[in-house]
Amino acid sequence: MLEDVKRALRSVVMITVTPFDAAGEVNAPGYRSVLRRTLDAGIDVVTPNGNTSEFYSLTAAERDRALELTVEEAADRALVVAGVGYDVRTAAESARKARDAGAQAIMVHQPVHPYLSAAGWVDYHRAVADAVPELGVVCYLRSPHIPAGALAELARVAPNFVGVKYAVPDPVAFGQAVTVVDDAAGAGRLVWICGLAETWAPFFWPVGAEGFTSGLANVTPELSLRLLATLHTGDRDGAMALWRQLKPFEDLRAANGSADNVTVVKEALAQLGLCARTVRPPISELPTAGQAEVADWLKSVN
Amino acid sequence: MLEDVKRALRSVVMITVTPFDAAGEVNAPGYRSVLRRTLDAGIDVVTPNGNTSEFYSLTAAERDRALELTVEEAADRALVVAGVGYDVRTAAESARKARDAGAQAIMVHQPVHPYLSAAGWVDYHRAVADAVPELGVVCYLRSPHIPAGALAELARVAPNFVGVKYAVPDPVAFGQAVTVVDDAAGAGRLVWICGLAETWAPFFWPVGAEGFTSGLANVTPELSLRLLATLHTGDRDGAMALWRQLKPFEDLRAANGSADNVTVVKEALAQLGLCARTVRPPISELPTAGQAEVADWLKSVN
Repeated sequence: MLEDVKRALRSVVMITVTPFDAAGEVNAPGYRSVLRRTLDAGIDVVTPNGNTSEFYSLTAAERDRALELTVEEAADRALVVAGVGYDVRTAAESARKARDAGAQAIMVHQPVHPYLSAAGWVDYHRAVADAVPELGVVCYLRSPHIPAGALAELARVAPNFVGVKYAVPDPVAFGQAVTVVDDAAGAGRLVWICGLAETWAPFFWPVGAEGFTSGLANVTPELSLRLLATLHTGDRDGAMALWRQLKPFEDLRAANGSADNVTVVKEALAQLGLCARTVRPPISELPTAGQAEVADWLKSVN
Repeated sequence: MLEDVKRALRSVVMITVTPFDAAGEVNAPGYRSVLRRTLDAGIDVVTPNGNTSEFYSLTAAERDRALELTVEEAADRALVVAGVGYDVRTAAESARKARDAGAQAIMVHQPVHPYLSAAGWVDYHRAVADAVPELGVVCYLRSPHIPAGALAELARVAPNFVGVKYAVPDPVAFGQAVTVVDDAAGAGRLVWICGLAETWAPFFWPVGAEGFTSGLANVTPELSLRLLATLHTGDRDGAMALWRQLKPFEDLRAANGSADNVTVVKEALAQLGLCARTVRPPISELPTAGQAEVADWLKSVN
């Protein structure tokens, strides 16, 4: 079972968007149809309640609902890796809910606590992993202050820790982390996922990445899947051509400290007629100029 | 009323620690006695559910309890500025709870959402402020991506927005923010609080800070209050002597990306016999060497 999860993770890990209706409430039919379109295109790993899902803007009930909708649409077509987070008790409780809802794995958000120690980081993730021993656990590493030794230690104490969503923009540190964990726990103990999406995937690939997360896949799943294929086959020219094609979209998302990371995705989905562009504070809709840039990019890939 | 809150904020804004018992549960008697000792020493502004309170490690029920304990001990002796946060609906609901519990003000944590836009930041804070028009609202600014114009805009649309807890470690940007808001909204419209505690307070003072946050005050309230007095009177030599005295303690807290920010405070309180050193993941207790450093520092100031 855990080996199945690991095998499945070597893919495009799409973070689902959470469409809202005009009143700002979760739009369940919109959620289903956006997700179904990507599954039809071949997406086979989905994470509800990730950052692109506006996880931190959803109430607890809405997070449960997003998980439920995802499992209903995707459970027999894709690996569902449910995002869980907040304080350690809430995260463990959310993990149990994910199991009960039918998810096969969880993605543990980096603790929102602004202070993280290496030992505390391990304890946090171990407690969450221990709550669902039958589920695969992926950690989401965003802090440069968590040393590779903490990953190795978690691999030692938590048998169901199966993967790392690595999101520190430092490929050298990433390669070092893979090396340290491989040396301590054995090659292949963990699956390494580039947590910085398509922009960074080619740079994490040479030292161990076998999958990458994606928000873009909500919009153009085939682009993300083609990038994955070129990386898997070592088609450098093909990968670079795709990278250049998708980069302007990812640049729009990354500008101003990623202010529009989700907004740009929802704008594109709105222009494609798939859901409203509505987002919740602390993010906001694109101004007209930004909307035009998204339109230009969509034209460039269609 | 709001003017009273503003006047009171020009002080040491102590963030309360949340003592745990040996089983890791919130220790109410410990909470009360640690807090009472600081009030006895003259602390007159307290924030429960701040970062030093391990806000992000507490469950919703525990956050309510910490607020309740604080109001019971401090309401007639100090200004209570209750920390609120998470998604916008939860933050607004927590603000109403703070009002109902008897707090006079709230401190809105920077939204945990990893993506912030200027307009979204304003909308988020406005929604929370609108939920409690009779309470003073202090925002907690940690991101360098929120422009000063967003602060001015919030001051325009939210009459009860009274102060900024500024925690970007850049005094030039701080001075610029004060200037922009003063120009747009009038001098004195907002109270500016150095949100980076004693270490940074002297550097924020020349351009507008009139108070500072403190975790140290849980341990040595008199040191923090003396620093405040020297800053208010312009006693540069006195301030620098105090700064040099407290700096080693704050350095222990700041090391390794602030991994031990809270841990060091609780370690000192434990050595003083005031509460257990227990913290919750994702942070962890100090190793023996760190405990000795805290002991040495306590000796140096007693």
